[in-house]
Amino acid sequence: MNKDPIKVSIVGWGNVGRGVYEAIKRNSDMHLSGVVSRTPERATAELGQGVLVYPTHDFYTMIADVAILCGGSKSDLPVQGPYFAQHFNTVDSFDTHADIPAYFAKMNEVARKNKHVSIISAGWDPGTFSLERVLGNAFLPGSNRETFWGPGVSQGHSDAIRRVEGVADAIQYTMPYDSALDAVRSGKKPKLTTGDRHWRDCHVALKPGADAELVAKTIKSMPKYFEDYDTKVTFETAAQIAERRKQMPHGGFVLTSGETGKGNKALVEYKNDWGSNPEATGSILVACARANFRLQQRSYTNGAFTMLDIPPALFSPHSRETLLKEWM
Amino acid sequence: MNKDPIKVSIVGWGNVGRGVYEAIKRNSDMHLSGVVSRTPERATAELGQGVLVYPTHDFYTMIADVAILCGGSKSDLPVQGPYFAQHFNTVDSFDTHADIPAYFAKMNEVARKNKHVSIISAGWDPGTFSLERVLGNAFLPGSNRETFWGPGVSQGHSDAIRRVEGVADAIQYTMPYDSALDAVRSGKKPKLTTGDRHWRDCHVALKPGADAELVAKTIKSMPKYFEDYDTKVTFETAAQIAERRKQMPHGGFVLTSGETGKGNKALVEYKNDWGSNPEATGSILVACARANFRLQQRSYTNGAFTMLDIPPALFSPHSRETLLKEWM
Repeated sequence: MNKDPIKVSIVGWGNVGRGVYEAIKRNSDMHLSGVVSRTPERATAELGQGVLVYPTHDFYTMIADVAILCGGSKSDLPVQGPYFAQHFNTVDSFDTHADIPAYFAKMNEVARKNKHVSIISAGWDPGTFSLERVLGNAFLPGSNRETFWGPGVSQGHSDAIRRVEGVADAIQYTMPYDSALDAVRSGKKPKLTTGDRHWRDCHVALKPGADAELVAKTIKSMPKYFEDYDTKVTFETAAQIAERRKQMPHGGFVLTSGETGKGNKALVEYKNDWGSNPEATGSILVACARANFRLQQRSYTNGAFTMLDIPPALFSPHSRETLLKEWM
Repeated sequence: MNKDPIKVSIVGWGNVGRGVYEAIKRNSDMHLSGVVSRTPERATAELGQGVLVYPTHDFYTMIADVAILCGGSKSDLPVQGPYFAQHFNTVDSFDTHADIPAYFAKMNEVARKNKHVSIISAGWDPGTFSLERVLGNAFLPGSNRETFWGPGVSQGHSDAIRRVEGVADAIQYTMPYDSALDAVRSGKKPKLTTGDRHWRDCHVALKPGADAELVAKTIKSMPKYFEDYDTKVTFETAAQIAERRKQMPHGGFVLTSGETGKGNKALVEYKNDWGSNPEATGSILVACARANFRLQQRSYTNGAFTMLDIPPALFSPHSRETLLKEWM
């Protein structure tokens, strides 16, 4: 292990940025070297004077072994990723699955040109779940792979409900069906539609005078988000919704079910259960920052990586000796 | 992916060797290039004339990209490992946890000297379980890690019972306590002794005239193997034990329970459940052979590796493009 801590900076002071901040405190080989924010005053008010906060237009004096990019995948990272990869080694949680190949190509190009290491699409899905899907398939070729999410809060679905006329506030929990999980575990390779895997639990606060029945109907019939699912709508007060938002739990399952030899059943199941989704992402991003730093020490290495491309030992704070002795 | 299949040879025609043989058949990028056996006639009788079988004293004409060493950890691998690493790139499942650092050092020395890649201690424990323990700890520093085995057959414990006077045959199942699993899952960090985690289910066939009560007492009080556990002994016929031995199921759990941020609970649980333990090991060894072959293609790489040192993508038959597009 390095004696000097790894200097990590946080780019974007939102939920994930705060999760990274908490995770850095739990890793003694890490030091927070700065925070970049669009609203530096707000970040400083929260962080105190001990942390260097840089506005987004003026971070060039910031020193960091790794910059963790905590912006969103929709509009932040497609711009911030390639920009910061010019100046820093980076880690991000780009999670628009369909756009990962193009984002990887762009980040790889910029990072290579600037001799940086950029780890993209880290977190739990994509991230550890990707890892488990790939390992399950590598050990059990031809196996059935299934991913389930929840119980947990979906930000995207919560946002979609809030855009419905008459809605003051809302939070949506994605709920897996135990029966579907059990069917996969049994090795039966069930043919599941999206609506067979999950149902959607919506908690909604109405604006004064809104038509509850119409709101519920509008939510349930919303294309892409809800129409393919069994959706339950419960009306609550704005205060109740605000209370719910203090906890952002999430989790999920990756199941690989297949056979070995002449038909012996095999099941690999990975499950995670997070009390705080942004802190979970933050914790994984920080371990990726450690791996990033170690990859930098290999002179022949630069460019873009996913968690699939990284020797797992590099995520660990322990030395090779300790891993061989205590962790195998 | 390579167009030419990877030429894999099997060293040792026992249960694991047969498991590797079955796994090679399920991986279209693999080709069995030969089997090395102490009893070549027996192996040939089983494999047919299509497979090249070499006796242990004369395998030097064998061509293999990777030799999978399927001997036992007690007396075979400490000799075979360093010997074969002189001649071939190797994969093995050395599983005497306490001796892994010394075995790694020896294999690393020989493999480096001969510019070979040797992946040691692969399988599910050590192997994928090691991977999950290390990842869990990297993402959740200070967390509680627990490993449970079973339900499944323990070869070592079955052997120990067979050495008891009056025992004709025996099979032993290691059984985890659901209550202990649940206590760990709850995040309570219970202090568990070995006997709190597992109990031992012994099925025994007696020799004619043996004293059943004395045999049961001798088993239950056997140091290291049984005295620290709740042990159940059931007497059956030799035919029943032989029938049980046709299935060699095993499995287990790796649980990492901890916290993020200011005390949000986090649980990562990995479980595998194998209908055939030797086929499970064989399946993982074959994926490691693929990774070994790809590591060889990096000119700067040789020496010993564990599964912790290998980028997970290298285990997969899929190309980087496919992984980015379909598996993230």
